[in-house]
This record gives sequence, C-alpha cells and structure tokens, in this order.
Amino acid sequence: MAHDQSYKDRKFEVVGNRFKRPDGVEKVTGKARYGADTFAPGQLVGRILRSPHAHAKIKKINTAKAEKLPGVKAIITSKDLPDLTNGDIGLQNILENCMARGRALYDGHAVAAVAAVDEQTARKALKLIEVEYKVLPHVTDVDEAMKPDAPLLHDWIFTSGVDPKPTKPSNIAGRTEMGNGDVEAGFKDADVIVEKSFKTGQTHQGYIEPHACLASVNPDGSAELWVTTQGHFSFRNTCAALLGLDFAALKTTSSEIGGGFGGKTHVWGEPVALALSRKANRPVKLVMNRDEVFRATGPTSSTSIDVKIGAKKNGTITAASAELRYQGGAFPGPWAMLGCMTGFACYDIKNMKAVGWDVVVNRPKSTAYRAPSAPMAAFAIESTMDMVAKEIGMDSVDFRLKNVAREGTRAPYGPIYGPIGIEPTLEAVRDHPHMKAKLKKNQARGVACGFWFNIGGQTCTDLNIGTDGTVNLTVGTVDVGGARASLAMIAAEELGVPYDRVRVNIGDSASLGHNDTTEGSRGTFSSGMATIFAARDAIDVMKERAAKMWDIPVEDIVWENGVARATGKKHGNLPTLSLKEIAAKSHNTGGPIAGHNEITADGAGNGFASHICDVEVDPETGAARVVRYTVVQDAGKAIHLDYVEGQFQGAAAQGIGWALNEEYIYGEDGRLQNAGFLDYRIPVCSDLPFIDTKILEIPNPNHPYGIRGVGETSIVPPLAAVSNAIANAVGVRMTQVPMSPQRVLAALDDLDNAS
Amino acid sequence: MAHDQSYKDRKFEVVGNRFKRPDGVEKVTGKARYGADTFAPGQLVGRILRSPHAHAKIKKINTAKAEKLPGVKAIITSKDLPDLTNGDIGLQNILENCMARGRALYDGHAVAAVAAVDEQTARKALKLIEVEYKVLPHVTDVDEAMKPDAPLLHDWIFTSGVDPKPTKPSNIAGRTEMGNGDVEAGFKDADVIVEKSFKTGQTHQGYIEPHACLASVNPDGSAELWVTTQGHFSFRNTCAALLGLDFAALKTTSSEIGGGFGGKTHVWGEPVALALSRKANRPVKLVMNRDEVFRATGPTSSTSIDVKIGAKKNGTITAASAELRYQGGAFPGPWAMLGCMTGFACYDIKNMKAVGWDVVVNRPKSTAYRAPSAPMAAFAIESTMDMVAKEIGMDSVDFRLKNVAREGTRAPYGPIYGPIGIEPTLEAVRDHPHMKAKLKKNQARGVACGFWFNIGGQTCTDLNIGTDGTVNLTVGTVDVGGARASLAMIAAEELGVPYDRVRVNIGDSASLGHNDTTEGSRGTFSSGMATIFAARDAIDVMKERAAKMWDIPVEDIVWENGVARATGKKHGNLPTLSLKEIAAKSHNTGGPIAGHNEITADGAGNGFASHICDVEVDPETGAARVVRYTVVQDAGKAIHLDYVEGQFQGAAAQGIGWALNEEYIYGEDGRLQNAGFLDYRIPVCSDLPFIDTKILEIPNPNHPYGIRGVGETSIVPPLAAVSNAIANAVGVRMTQVPMSPQRVLAALDDLDNAS
Repeated sequence: MAHDQSYKDRKFEVVGNRFKRPDGVEKVTGKARYGADTFAPGQLVGRILRSPHAHAKIKKINTAKAEKLPGVKAIITSKDLPDLTNGDIGLQNILENCMARGRALYDGHAVAAVAAVDEQTARKALKLIEVEYKVLPHVTDVDEAMKPDAPLLHDWIFTSGVDPKPTKPSNIAGRTEMGNGDVEAGFKDADVIVEKSFKTGQTHQGYIEPHACLASVNPDGSAELWVTTQGHFSFRNTCAALLGLDFAALKTTSSEIGGGFGGKTHVWGEPVALALSRKANRPVKLVMNRDEVFRATGPTSSTSIDVKIGAKKNGTITAASAELRYQGGAFPGPWAMLGCMTGFACYDIKNMKAVGWDVVVNRPKSTAYRAPSAPMAAFAIESTMDMVAKEIGMDSVDFRLKNVAREGTRAPYGPIYGPIGIEPTLEAVRDHPHMKAKLKKNQARGVACGFWFNIGGQTCTDLNIGTDGTVNLTVGTVDVGGARASLAMIAAEELGVPYDRVRVNIGDSASLGHNDTTEGSRGTFSSGMATIFAARDAIDVMKERAAKMWDIPVEDIVWENGVARATGKKHGNLPTLSLKEIAAKSHNTGGPIAGHNEITADGAGNGFASHICDVEVDPETGAARVVRYTVVQDAGKAIHLDYVEGQFQGAAAQGIGWALNEEYIYGEDGRLQNAGFLDYRIPVCSDLPFIDTKILEIPNPNHPYGIRGVGETSIVPPLAAVSNAIANAVGVRMTQVPMSPQRVLAALDDLDNAS
Repeated sequence: MAHDQSYKDRKFEVVGNRFKRPDGVEKVTGKARYGADTFAPGQLVGRILRSPHAHAKIKKINTAKAEKLPGVKAIITSKDLPDLTNGDIGLQNILENCMARGRALYDGHAVAAVAAVDEQTARKALKLIEVEYKVLPHVTDVDEAMKPDAPLLHDWIFTSGVDPKPTKPSNIAGRTEMGNGDVEAGFKDADVIVEKSFKTGQTHQGYIEPHACLASVNPDGSAELWVTTQGHFSFRNTCAALLGLDFAALKTTSSEIGGGFGGKTHVWGEPVALALSRKANRPVKLVMNRDEVFRATGPTSSTSIDVKIGAKKNGTITAASAELRYQGGAFPGPWAMLGCMTGFACYDIKNMKAVGWDVVVNRPKSTAYRAPSAPMAAFAIESTMDMVAKEIGMDSVDFRLKNVAREGTRAPYGPIYGPIGIEPTLEAVRDHPHMKAKLKKNQARGVACGFWFNIGGQTCTDLNIGTDGTVNLTVGTVDVGGARASLAMIAAEELGVPYDRVRVNIGDSASLGHNDTTEGSRGTFSSGMATIFAARDAIDVMKERAAKMWDIPVEDIVWENGVARATGKKHGNLPTLSLKEIAAKSHNTGGPIAGHNEITADGAGNGFASHICDVEVDPETGAARVVRYTVVQDAGKAIHLDYVEGQFQGAAAQGIGWALNEEYIYGEDGRLQNAGFLDYRIPVCSDLPFIDTKILEIPNPNHPYGIRGVGETSIVPPLAAVSNAIANAVGVRMTQVPMSPQRVLAALDDLDNAS
C-alpha cells in the first residue's frame, strides 16, 4: 500500500531529533521491572530438571520420592502436558522442546519440572526425581548430521522439497531452492570463478536477562502470565494453544526486557510454568539461570556453506551459486531458506541459484538471532565477493557497485525491489573519509554489505487523551530498543504536542488487540504506522469536538500544529482551540477523546548496509582486533537518531563478536562446554572501538513517514567485513567463524608452510 | 438521548440469565489480588502518624530523631506537599485532609508519614516524631457545630447560599433550598399536619478491605499507583493534580476491591504514598489498619432533620417541608443538597420545600456511602409519611400511592420524570403475599420507599477479538458488584457468541481512556452502553471483513446471531461466516478486529424501591430484630439476575444495620470510641433473615437495552421501614437511628411513663 507521499516535503518538528528516553530513569535506577521482578501472593518456585545427555531414551521417570518432600506442590512431566503427537506438528514440536516426550534430544532438554514453596525445596525435589535413561548416539555437527549413517533424531522427518520424496527418515528436514537465469551457462561466461566453503559457529544472542516468568492458572481456565518476551501476544496465543486455554482468558503482560535479539520470540519455560501453576493451583515463578539459557534456549544455527561466483574481467558477475546447510537444533526450522533469500540480495545477478538444507542435530532448538540466517550467508558470499574482486584486480567496493541491486531489480526471493539503499550505502562507503585513513602496521581494511527484509504485520494502537491534554499511547510491540521514545515522538509530531506530553505504554494482551512479536525490525515501522493512524483518528474526533464547541460545520475546521483552526472568512474571528482546550471540555462534548488503529502493516522497506572495518592482527598470537569501524545503513526516515545509531552500533558489535570470539563448543559427549559468559565470550566495551555511523534516509514509500526498519541489517556485514580485513592484513582467507586467535594462527602457519 | 427502542421487543438470548461470575474462582480460592497484594522490588513500608486530638494547632513537628533511625528512607509532613492554600480550594481541601497543614481537625487526622524498610522500623520512626500540639476546643455534633459560639474549624468558611453573605466565618458551609408551590398556603389547606425532628448517627460503609496502595514515583515525573479504589481514573487525575504530575504519566491500576460502597471514591493515603515514594525514590506500600479506616477515612454524615407534612383527610398531601442538617466532617461537602434532592422524590407534592445545611465538625471528612445522603432524608420523611397516614386513618401504602410520582411529575430537583417505577413498586408491595402474611407476637410490619438518581458519565470501552474467536472486553469502571459478568453477557448478547468466550478486563489508566468512578450505580449502565456500542463497532468491522472475504459489497451483509450473512438472491449460495471464522482470517483481511467506544453516557434512569419489613421487638430488652424483609425495586432491564438481586439484598442489609446498630460514637474528648468491627457492629448473616426480592423492569428509554442502575436505591428505605415496623409493633415512634436496644427501651419507658 503506497501512502500519501507528502512526508517527503514535510518539515518534521519532533521526528529526527534526540530526546531523553522515557524508560531511561527507571532502568538506570533499578526500578524497571524485568521478568523476575514481579510477585504474587502464594507464589511457588518452579525449577526444571534437564537431561545430562545429548540424546537418550527416557525409559522411566519416578517422581514418587520428590512428591513426598514437604513443600513440593506440583511435579510435571510430559504426561501432564497435552499429547499433540497426532495433532498440529508445529505445536507438538514447540511443546516437546519445552518438555521432552520419550526422548531427550539435547544436553539440557527439559524432562520434568517442580513447583515448590522455595528454591531450596525445588532444587532438592529435582534431585529426588529418578530418571532412567538409555543413552543413544548423538550428532551435533550439521555436516555430520546429513550423512546417511548419522544418528537419527526423529523417525518422522522425511526431507521435504526433494523429488522423489524419501521413504526413509533422516535428519534433513527440508531442501529449499531459489534463483533465476541459467547458472551453468553463466559460469561458462565467466572469466574468473571462485569457489569456497565456509563454516560458522553456533552463537547466542547474548541477552543479559535470563528467561523468567510468573504464571498463574485458575481452575476456570483463566490465567495470567507475566513474562520477559519480545512478543507477549504471540506467547499468549502459543501458550493458550498448547494448554487448551482461550486466547482471551490468558492475560499476558510483557515485563521490561533485558535484551532479546530474537532469543525471546519463542516459548521455553512459559508453558511449563503455566502447567505447574495449573496443577498446583498456585502462581509459579520460573526463572532460568545462565546455564539453562545457554543449554536449553535457542541459539542461532551453526552452518556449512559453499559459494561459487563467476565474473567477467570487467567486474560483471555472470553467475553465482551457494549451497547452505543450517542446523536448527533438535527441531526443524526455516533457517536455510532465510539464508537462501538473503545471501545474494545486495546484487543484481542474472544467473543465480541458492540451495538450502535444514538439518536437525542434538542441540537446543534454534531460534531467531537478529537478521536470522543472514550473517552466515553474508559471511560466505561477501568473503567470496572480495576474493573475486581480488582475482580480477578490481577494487572491492567498485566490484560490488558494478553488480549492485537497484530499484527494479528482482530480489533473489521473488519480488521486484522498490526504492532501496544498497547503492547509496556503497557510494557513501566509497566516499567516506574512513576509506582514505592511513593504516598502521599489521592493520588492513575490509568492506562488506548486508541485507535484511524488515517486516510489518499485525499491529494495534490505542491513543487516549487526558483532560489535562497529556496523551497515553498504548502499543503492543514490546520496546526492545527505545521504541517508546520513537513512538512518543511520532505521536507528538502528528498531534502537535510536546514530546514529553506523550507517555507510551506497552499494553497487556487483555487490553489491546493482537500485535505480532517485536522482530524483523518491525516495531517502529508498524507501531509507528498504527500510531500515526490512531493520532489522525483522534484528530478527527477533536475536529468534531471543536465544531461542536464553536457550533460550526466540521468541514470548516483544520488541524494544524496541535490546534483546531476554523477556515474561511465567515469564521474569521474565532480563536484557535488547542488539543488541551478541547480535551478539557471533552466531558461535555461527547466523552473522552481517543484514537485507535488496528492494522496488518504491509510494505516494510528493505534494509541495506555497507560496513568498513579496520583490523589489526597480531602475527605472533593470531589475535585480530577491530580498530576502526563504520556502519552506513539506510534507515528510511530516521525517527530517533540516537536509537537508530544505537541499533547500527549494537548490531555491528554483535556481528564483530560473532566474527572473532563467539561460538558454542560441544564436547565429544555432546554436552555444551561453555554455558556461561566466562567461557562464551561476547565483546565488552574494551574490545571495541567507538563504532561510527552514517544514517542514510531513502524513504520507504509504503510508510506514511517513510520508515524502514533499522534493528537487524547491520549484524549481517561484520563477519565478512572482519574476514576481508584480516585477509587484507595478513593474506589469509579465513573460512570459519569465529576467527579466533588459534584459528588465525593456524591459518598463518598453513600459509608459512605453503610458502 | 433516546435510543432505538427495539430492545423492548427483543428476545434476549444471554441477558436476563444467571451465569457464573468470571472473577468468582479467583476470589474464593484467595488468588484475587486486592490492594495489599502487590509487591515491587525495593518497596518500602509507609505508615502515617495521626493526631490524637479532635482539634489542635500543630505548633511544631520535629522529625530529626526519626530521620536518624536506620532504615528510615523518607519522612514527610505537609511541608513536603504542595501548598495549594491560595489555589484550587477543592484540591487544597483534599490535600489538607490527606495531611494536616497547621491544624489537626479530627481524631486520626494525618500529621506526618514515614517510609521505611520494614513495618517495625516504620512504627518505631512514628514514635520518634515529636509533634507539639496546642489542643483547641472541638465540636462533633452537627447541631452544636451550627451554634454561633461553636468552636470554629476554618476561618475561610462564610456560609454560601444565604443573603446577605455572612461577614463572619462559621462552621456552616452552605445553605441549599429547593421546592415548588406555596408551602405556607399548602399547610393551611391541610386537614392534618405532622411535624417531627429526627437524628441519624454517622455510619461507615463497612467494607472489609482497608485502604491500600503501592505507589512508585520516578525522578522524571512518571509514576505508578496500584490501589484499591472504585475509580482509578479519578484517583489518577486527583493524585496527579495534587502532586503536579501529568495525568498520562501516572499509570494507575485498580486492584480487586474488597468492598467500597462509596468509601473508595476518595483519596486518603494515596497522595501520601506517592509523596513518600517521590522523596525516597523507592516504591512505597501503604496499607491502613482498621483503626485508621474508621478514624481517618470517610464515613457518611450524621444528620439532624425536621420534617413537616400536611395532608387532606382523603390522603392528598397539600404541603411538605424539611430542614436537613448534614455534617461533612472537617471539610465541606454536598451532602445536605443531596438530601434535599432525594427526600421527597417519590412523591408528587404541589407545595414542597427543602432546606439543607452543610456543616463542618471535628470528624473525618465525609464521603459517599451508597445513595449518599438519601437514607437519612428518607428515614425522616418516610417515618413522617407513616405518621400522617396513621393520623388520617389511611393505609400507609395507599397513602403513598395516592401521592406517588409518575411519568411527567416534576422531580424535587427540577427535571420532569420520564417513565419511572415508584408506582409499580408500591403496587407490587400492596399485592405481595408478604403483606398478607401472619405476624407473631411482638411483631409488626412497616413499609417505606426510596429513590436514587443513578448517574452516567464518562466511559471508555475497548473490545478486541482474538484469532480463536474469543473476546477481550476492556472496561474502566471498577467491578464492585459483578459488573464483569453483566458486561460479558452484554458483549456476548450483542456479538452473538457464548458468554464464556468473553473475558472482561478492568483496564489501567494508561491503556484506556478516562472512566468516571464506579458510583451512582453507573457501572453496568454506562459501561454496558459503551460495550454495546463497541460491539456494534466491531460488528461493522466484521461485516467489512466478510465483504472482503466474499468480495461483495458490505451493504449486502447483515450480522445475525454471531454470523455474517449475505442478503439478496445474488449471494444466495454463500454460507454464513461466523465471528470465529472471520477472526481467524483477520490477519489477511486488514488486521486484528476491534471495537471501541468513548462516551459521556447520558440518560441514566431513576431508581425507585419500596420495601416491606417485619420486625420483632423484645419489650424486655428493646432489641428489635428483622424477621422478614422484601425488596421491590425497578431495575430497568435486569442483566444478571443474581447480581441485581444481590445488590437489592446487600443494600437492604446495610440499611438494616444502619437502622438498628451502626453508629460512630465520639467521646467527650472528641475521640472515636468504637474504631473497629467489634464495637462498630455491622449485621452478620445470623442477624438477618433471607432478604426476598422482586425485580421490576420498567425500561429506561435512554439506554439501548433499557438499563437503569440497581446498586444504591435499596439502602434508602430500610431505616424508615424498620422504624415504621417498630412503631407498629410497640407503638413508639423512634426519631433517632440506630434504633439500638437501649434507645428503643428508653422510648418504651417514656411511653410507659406517659401513659
């Protein structure tokens, strides 16, 4: 849907500035209430018993001793949860991931849960639960899991998307293929072809706040859930469906969220807490510890990717193909498909083919992590792009610009691009002072690009105006990165009131219509759209009220800068009526003033970014360190500049951590060896330079203010940008992330040995 | 505003039945969360230091010692609250009642408050606060307070409504007069004139749950308040105005309420808790104990009333007049005016005059108690009515019917009645089997009538439909008596879905537009109206969605019994689409489905009731006991029959308690002597017979379902009904309530002495 394009000439008063965030004080003073920060009278402590085995048959669970322990109020196993085996397979997978049924599929898989009067009793009870396992062979590597003789996770997976459909089950859940043109012919036309294989480690979103919730179910089927989540409406729907509750009966409230980055888009302990509460008929609080977060919630996929790119000497890519293998943990996911869709999206390639394989392994079920699946594909493809540029002796930015996607290019996943920003970001990179800055010894520079779709989706917004003229804006998209500030700015802009007169509230699931999860960089895009429409709805009401107060036709009233003004000579002497004045009289003119909007927000604008990275590599230790970093990204219209920049910086920082340090390390026994922030090392301040940013604003014609999304795209380029810089610094092409000191050192040794 | 009258012929499917209440299970299992049942991390305990004197100058407050006590985080006195002395006098009175400024005006008046880490520390701190008082003379009786030489509470009260305006301050805040015709002439026409003076004791609403709140104020002016209240939006507005916060910035949530009956329409400790939190920068929980509730929150007025009624021998009242003196506690109120408006409202009296006097005394500030001010006026007038009937030898019901108000009669307070139910209730009483039932020894029967306005007011309702077809209805009128059930029924009726698919939620002040307080029997009337309109709004959306799904014009679609149906031959083959089916597809047809309504609900229908009361009086002890009781009341359309009856019964029970037992007893020292339920005796089950009810349904033409209000009217007749029955039983006319055993015995003794 194309909107009124008048925003292009609009002089924004509020939008595009930097205001204090409304939730800032509460957060820095420790008052903000996160997942663990609520209490209900009579609440119990929930704890989960987890499998110590990567793969095991659960022969027997004996809870008798634990049940006899004083203070234990409920114990559940999969027997206490619905059996959806022959029902909705999607729901069944979600449920079985929350509580193993028959088999433990990964180290940390829940097998039973306890609700007790206190933590100590709950822990004691877990120890009294006797589980008899039969340990089975396991597989945790994506390539290993694809082998015909690999240990099998499920007997019901028959690879989809292949012809003929297999008759034997395997760990390969599905095959995806997309592309265009004739790849074979394209490669024949190439002057240069580069082929390379890559692997990426499994990473965690690194949110600080562990999963936590307080659940309370009543015997009449009504229930409440307080939870740290990116999407309390989706949690509501999923939990209700899993437990057989009415959506309307499960009031779900999102707490403040201590980071999510995709990791809080999926239920883990919440259905367990609800089931415990239902059995105990008491509220149950369930808070994970860090170990549980690592072992048993959703990291992103590890991957194995082959890329082949062919080009003419003039730089034109004649063909490109990729084969992408993503493991989804113990249950199938859409991850390889997302890799196929995003990998080549920055380029206009006549002959292109991407084949994806979704694979299950004995690891926790993967979930989204900021631009899910895109960084791995970009690592492989953007690394190969640099190699091709080198082969044909072309500047890597010029090579990318030569093949860049533009408005009218067909995206790898089908649609024709509207106005997009990849070319401007590359041009901005090319022209950026950073590109001309001098480098020191052992330093070099790399560039890479990234793409993310951005999404819209279901959105509901209520806007209520108090009789003092202050505004409550209620949205349903969880504020993960400053959206309350951005949305208050949008409401203030539209209504013509000061920013601090607008207070933004995240509505609970009982008070507001369904909102899709805050993911896909949709928060400000879609709630911004719904806020604009709700504000316009309220303005219509205020014009009607002004008409009533003046006793003139509403058609003779315009709304300008926060006031109603009568138009035309015949009303020449009327003063204006401000929002506050109209609100103060609302009781007598019909009732409180409100605006509402429910929408499926279509038309999210694609996000593109190009990054510049300088690294310094210590040839003695192999340690690579990012010394300068610049993000250029198209934001569409940027609402709150600090938070746009903050998203760019945060995404880049996570990408750099992924590039250099982060990965899940599984032992031979299939158990996770680094389930904590001491051994799973995310970058801290001292690891990074200040990340410079440049916001480009190519308006999205499908949004009334031109907004795209900004939250994810910039996690995509860093893996390749760092790798390209390392290649330029020390002449080794790293094919595996993280590019840890030992891996870089080993590559340097190989180089020495080869020379 | 007159509505579509089609409800008169409407066959209701859901409305008019008896469904299980949605909040029932939570309440009986102890899970429901009341004012004291919430917790915030780092919360402090708030406690209030109260005056031990009925009237005293506060010479000095020394908090130094208390401040030094470890664990004390904030101490406030009136110095920490805004000084509104020269501002809004209404706000200033509210504030000064919450915290004395300069003078303590009643026993229990707050003089300082403490927030500390625990209860013990807070109590200890209170003891360390040194207050230097100069005790002043006090007055607690309404008649005494009106005397020229009475101790003066305020130097700024110059009686309003008298001409010339007094030049000297007094305790008489205002005079109200209303009436019609020529009372002097009317009395001259009378064959019989009865004049009598009455007094009523001050009573408490008797709610079980003490006032409680959790307040949290941030340095940026945002704040949260969880509170047991009848009106969290009004509390929000008042507290914000008192403390200088934006309405939108103070998110107020109403807890479950353990009774209010008018007593939770006014702020007491809430502004104190907020001010403590602001000073301590920590959440503060403030829970009153029973002693504080009695001594320092708002009971109803005690009164002194003179009535004079003249009638012809044929029963026609020729003139009636009353002089009504109501004390409002330490601050002025509108109480006598309400007595004037309601006292004669059941009758069509040509010559009528009511004069009211609002008086301040050294007692806690009065507040509303169920049909505020009406029971006292009715006690005096309905007692006198019986005396006149006796004088002219007419049956008391016939006498009332002879003078009854009807559609077209002008109410004492001005407007012309629409269709009203007083005549039908009196006819129903006359024809009720109870009236013919045999009486035992020392038993007799009395009848009395009562009136209450019922009100409408500002109301906002949101209705959101989940994709599973279940419905969240969010209303802002606190559910004090089963409104969630009634409103769910109304939504179910309108949408055509089963009752249990609708879940009603009381929205917080940030998520919903302003709703006036649940008082004046407005809850089901006004939120019912807004629910109907919101449901119709949602139905319009669903018709549009069905049109989109079928690709036909929306004009060709009707909504019937929960389904969209295409009309006309050209769409003959289309099946129906249910709400659930339309909701399931809403994502693809435009977004979530909702309906909204914001309204100032006008046109509440007046409530009238006639009661029959049988008492048995023990001539030895003077103890009167109600042995049978029947309430007949016009409900307009009755939504949930159990709750309509429950309101009738509860109101009658409270009226009977008031009639026989309840009163505040002040000592010579001006201190309350019975601040607890042991000494302030409300009726318990064993004190009362089952109270029989008869619902009449005279539809209110100003409501789309014909609803009136039902919550208050039936507290009005019992005082007089009991008194009339006692008069009939033992021949003494009681002129003071409560008609306690000692008073009845004294009256019997007087009778013996006189005979």
